Amino acid sequence: MKILAFILLTLPLFAQSTTEVDAIKSVLKTQEKLWNEGKIEAFMEYYEKSEDLKFIGKAGVTKGWAATLKRYQTSYPNRETMGTLAFDILEVDVTAGQTAWVLGKWKLTRPSIGDVGGYFTLLLKKIDGRWLVVRDHTS
Amino acid sequence: MKILAFILLTLPLFAQSTTEVDAIKSVLKTQEKLWNEGKIEAFMEYYEKSEDLKFIGKAGVTKGWAATLKRYQTSYPNRETMGTLAFDILEVDVTAGQTAWVLGKWKLTRPSIGDVGGYFTLLLKKIDGRWLVVRDHTS
Repeated sequence: MKILAFILLTLPLFAQSTTEVDAIKSVLKTQEKLWNEGKIEAFMEYYEKSEDLKFIGKAGVTKGWAATLKRYQTSYPNRETMGTLAFDILEVDVTAGQTAWVLGKWKLTRPSIGDVGGYFTLLLKKIDGRWLVVRDHTS
Repeated sequence: MKILAFILLTLPLFAQSTTEVDAIKSVLKTQEKLWNEGKIEAFMEYYEKSEDLKFIGKAGVTKGWAATLKRYQTSYPNRETMGTLAFDILEVDVTAGQTAWVLGKWKLTRPSIGDVGGYFTLLLKKIDGRWLVVRDHTS
């Protein structure tokens, strides 16, 4: 009976988490579909409509919803440049606890062989009282 | 008196948040210092020591702490290739609420002008009941 009670009590937790993951996958599936119909503005409806939105790409950081839409429209002016989009979702991690997001620039100054640099975005979690990097995207 | 009470009651919230942001900035400051002393293993102590760690770079996704260390050691075999590292922290966002992290691959199939693709990492937040992208790093 204890095991059954445990299962019944924890079931909603798993269900809730699965639902959120499905909801997120569905957002990306919809974006894929809209892109492939040439609907960039509709595709952009799944970005936060705020000046706070940030897009980090090859040309650097684009700030705000309108600027991000403009960036997409400039980079992909027609169906030929838009092509057929396919997403391959490798991971969806829904966290209810405390996490941190970091955006930064990195630069290695190397006098004899040439400097290199770019942007990085980090996901950090507090593990046993210490903030540790759990995801690092460096470009 | 109401304003004073409000300030006194909310002060710990700001203080806590500032402390966490400072703690994260301090992690990156320490990593910068360790890199510039040629100490890659010590630099790696600020990554989660787990098989779950992921590093997304130009060559794709590296999984796990040991593999990430090896990647750094291979890419930067000596002080000359390591150079002098400088971070420029543009944003630190500590979120206590529910967020989601997505890692994926993107590909645009474009028969006449050539395919393009890469990786993307997203930070999503649930805003008014909808999951929306608030940060997008595409490379």
